[in-house]
Amino acid sequence: MVSSEIENLIGLLAKLPGLGPRSARRAVLYLIKRRESLAQPLTKAMADALDNVKTCSQCGNLDTTDPCQLCTDPKRDDALICVVEDVADLWALERAKVFQGRYHVLGGVLSALGGIGPEDLNIPALIERTGGGSGVREVILATSATVDGQTTAHFLADKLAATGVEITELAHGVPVGGELDYLDDGTLGAALKDRRPV
Amino acid sequence: MVSSEIENLIGLLAKLPGLGPRSARRAVLYLIKRRESLAQPLTKAMADALDNVKTCSQCGNLDTTDPCQLCTDPKRDDALICVVEDVADLWALERAKVFQGRYHVLGGVLSALGGIGPEDLNIPALIERTGGGSGVREVILATSATVDGQTTAHFLADKLAATGVEITELAHGVPVGGELDYLDDGTLGAALKDRRPV
Repeated sequence: MVSSEIENLIGLLAKLPGLGPRSARRAVLYLIKRRESLAQPLTKAMADALDNVKTCSQCGNLDTTDPCQLCTDPKRDDALICVVEDVADLWALERAKVFQGRYHVLGGVLSALGGIGPEDLNIPALIERTGGGSGVREVILATSATVDGQTTAHFLADKLAATGVEITELAHGVPVGGELDYLDDGTLGAALKDRRPV
Repeated sequence: MVSSEIENLIGLLAKLPGLGPRSARRAVLYLIKRRESLAQPLTKAMADALDNVKTCSQCGNLDTTDPCQLCTDPKRDDALICVVEDVADLWALERAKVFQGRYHVLGGVLSALGGIGPEDLNIPALIERTGGGSGVREVILATSATVDGQTTAHFLADKLAATGVEITELAHGVPVGGELDYLDDGTLGAALKDRRPV
């Protein structure tokens, strides 16, 4: 006997990643109790984001402008392109403030099981951006260290070989702050293999 | 360099219970990728719920009508009132389909630490509903089995004693499907004390 408006809202919220039916119910009650301080601003923010946010036609990032702020920022290095799987990975690198080049968002990884082939990813635009005369010096393949991520990186390295551009990948090793005891064998092996003088 | 529209939406979503900044970011990307199938219906559902859902002036439930459907349903027993802390508890009882009387939502529990006193809860309306001539036969105090929940139940039992109505509480015991090995001592003790002939 919960009203259909509430049921509907719970059902939609429960579809978000990280929320299930129970947490969606809690969230709806929380929202209704905080009508003015949270629910109304959230409704407005969602409508605003939907109206204004678009995919950058150059790099695949999400922004209110196309090309996005990262593609048009004159302080960034055009000769360096960092290829990431998803906008979330781009955000992670931007939060870390460790990269000052351009990005390229693939929109996923190759996956035989998931039925994702090269034609489903933002790959032609990458090849075009890095081709002869583009001035690109290095492409960093920053896909995840998963099987699919590494398959995708190898595929891209093959595709980009003809352009003559330098192709690099992120280093593997012990995460900063990580305890050896909790690391998996693969990471420990990679960290030992790539050891360096102190 | 994430656009302010997206930052704003992430910040507001992260305030929901069960979501933090990281899961809010994931949710926002998920929403933007599913613009028509999820984000637009969700925006509409939130606006609808905000416009139409109100608190029932009789029992404290949330519904699109006031008094709510549960208060006006002629098939429910007026002589039985189940007192719960929150609308979520009312929903839980309704999902279980185990109660056919009326409800009364307190809107919280007494909490010395949280600074919640009797004047912050929906208590006067409860006393009025159960007073002489109301036809109420039994009040079930279904507050949580926490210290604050039980304190609130005792407080209400005292307050309602003068009305002469029967006052009951939920049984304690082994949860259906629960394993003894995993139960706390308090629950085991209560289950043993209230043991019954097979």
